Amino acid sequence: MKTKAAVAWKAGAPLTIEEVDLAGPGEGEVLIEVKATGICHTDYYTLSGADPEGIFPAILGHEGAGVVVETGAGVTSVKKYDHVIPLYTPECRQCKYCLSRKTNLCQAIRSTQGKGLMPDSTSRFSIGGKVIYHYMGTSTFSNYIVVPEIAVAKIREDAPFDKACYVGCGVTTGVGAVIFSAKVEAGANVVVFGLGGIGLNVIQGARMVGANKIIGVDINPRRIGIARKFGMTDFVNPNEVENLVGHLIQLTDGGADYSFECIGNVTTMRQALECCHKGWGQSYIIGVAAAGEEISTRPFQLVTGREWKGSAFGGARGRTDVPKIVDWYMDGKLNIDDLITHTLPLERINEGFDLMKLGESIRSVVLY
Amino acid sequence: MKTKAAVAWKAGAPLTIEEVDLAGPGEGEVLIEVKATGICHTDYYTLSGADPEGIFPAILGHEGAGVVVETGAGVTSVKKYDHVIPLYTPECRQCKYCLSRKTNLCQAIRSTQGKGLMPDSTSRFSIGGKVIYHYMGTSTFSNYIVVPEIAVAKIREDAPFDKACYVGCGVTTGVGAVIFSAKVEAGANVVVFGLGGIGLNVIQGARMVGANKIIGVDINPRRIGIARKFGMTDFVNPNEVENLVGHLIQLTDGGADYSFECIGNVTTMRQALECCHKGWGQSYIIGVAAAGEEISTRPFQLVTGREWKGSAFGGARGRTDVPKIVDWYMDGKLNIDDLITHTLPLERINEGFDLMKLGESIRSVVLY
Repeated sequence: MKTKAAVAWKAGAPLTIEEVDLAGPGEGEVLIEVKATGICHTDYYTLSGADPEGIFPAILGHEGAGVVVETGAGVTSVKKYDHVIPLYTPECRQCKYCLSRKTNLCQAIRSTQGKGLMPDSTSRFSIGGKVIYHYMGTSTFSNYIVVPEIAVAKIREDAPFDKACYVGCGVTTGVGAVIFSAKVEAGANVVVFGLGGIGLNVIQGARMVGANKIIGVDINPRRIGIARKFGMTDFVNPNEVENLVGHLIQLTDGGADYSFECIGNVTTMRQALECCHKGWGQSYIIGVAAAGEEISTRPFQLVTGREWKGSAFGGARGRTDVPKIVDWYMDGKLNIDDLITHTLPLERINEGFDLMKLGESIRSVVLY
Repeated sequence: MKTKAAVAWKAGAPLTIEEVDLAGPGEGEVLIEVKATGICHTDYYTLSGADPEGIFPAILGHEGAGVVVETGAGVTSVKKYDHVIPLYTPECRQCKYCLSRKTNLCQAIRSTQGKGLMPDSTSRFSIGGKVIYHYMGTSTFSNYIVVPEIAVAKIREDAPFDKACYVGCGVTTGVGAVIFSAKVEAGANVVVFGLGGIGLNVIQGARMVGANKIIGVDINPRRIGIARKFGMTDFVNPNEVENLVGHLIQLTDGGADYSFECIGNVTTMRQALECCHKGWGQSYIIGVAAAGEEISTRPFQLVTGREWKGSAFGGARGRTDVPKIVDWYMDGKLNIDDLITHTLPLERINEGFDLMKLGESIRSVVLY
């Protein structure tokens, strides 16, 4: 079949809208009509050329929601007309990782996914016979996509696509880091570095589970208003305090019980660890640092009880937990509406990247 | 009263045996006759002058066992003739740390202990009116000591002092890191960096809880025999493999579930983290690095699920858990006898330090 898609031909160039040939779905695969997709910073990172693992030409996008159009042989967990979110972190429920009960990082199709291919090592996308690669196993900048069944989360049908799509990455990454990775408990003090889309979702996750202080740290005060609306109790501008770590430890009466780095800066990663409470404070790295950068600290920080950890896709198992997060949104426990600052048709997708670059958007969503 | 003690007059000088004046016990304090004490690397570190927090003149030693001789007013948890281990990490059961249920690092008397003083900010030791400082709140190189009640663990009376004393530091630090800090589960794969006294205790802790592979890493093959006796299943000499981290990941079919750094070297701390299994491997720093040294890694190591942590005094709550470890020894679950390689009278304590420096001893114990 044919599908309309925004193709990234090479690093640094704008996307172009094309008619793309789409094959499948094959056995164990699902054809999805994508109804809406967010534009995430990771798409921008890859498009910019900074991602050492970027592959071109490709169809980017990994934060979508849509409807099942057709299922391949053997597919049992979803059927035609189901509303779904495609998963860049699948959940096969059979690999060592899925069965470990300790991680959400299913490795079932990781090697082919990293090469921009389906599990059978081929691409379903082409133009005039020329291969166009998949991206993060999802490629939601295409109106129709084919994904393996293990990478499809079924969600409730009353959830609006233009909001639910954000659960495909940003909401889950932030809220999940609090709830699934850190398991923040009621009454805990939380420090959040960076008040972008991820940081705001960490904040509302912390509020949802009853955290005590929720301290936002950002050099840009522009987000104070929405951060407070999402649950931030205190704001700290690093440029306005002499000793950021000391100030945060004082604000939290000894240090954060949990801190989250949502920037991708190795300096703030260290600060996030060191502002944690002696004895038990846990710091989670969510942000992605530039290639080759390293984090450092004195081992004494760990020997005295702080813990340094990370969170990917919010620690969420895609098929199991993503539908729960959609429920929480529909139940009014999470606010997604205020985070979707712009909506655009596919034809204007490049404007969404521009808005992100300028810091004008929290999340731009493309509607098909 | 008078007590015989080995006094450290200044950094780098041998200890001298002295008649020392000992005051007390005051309210809430306990007078203990120390029957045996181990000589730990931390005593050596302080005596060498490398410890930036070292205070002189002092009575070193922190790994003792003995008998209660007298209790001050208000002491209720121990009485005369009780067999006890003095605790350099106390357990007040009332401070924020003790009540957190998340750490063993009781802070009730930390500030005075760090200054070589009792909680009332004075020393109980003196010679001719000149103050001699306490060390780590215990000073077990003195035949009689006065310690706060919260720093006294009551143990069973049939445990021999010359073995039980080792539970006061080394055994608890190693075994406890496995059991209380990491909570290693049966079937886990464990990698232990450094086969000194701590590493051997980590190994036997891992064996006690039913670990699967227990891999010892050391550049010195001398300890292979005893390590195997204690439960090591595989030995790796870093000088005999090309890529240590890759080799360990291969040996453990993907990486260690738990690794323990028992050396104090920031390079091996990084290797210990990076040999952990993607998704869930946890690395614990036990060794103490030189002042000012830093650990580093790529944040990707944490974002993909490895966790970097530390353990002090094995995560053990002194009054609650130390008696349990003594029980485990008496029950034959732990081997202490083979780790006590030398016993000496107090008068020959300096020989114990020499044996340690030469690597001739695992643990030398001084008997009073």
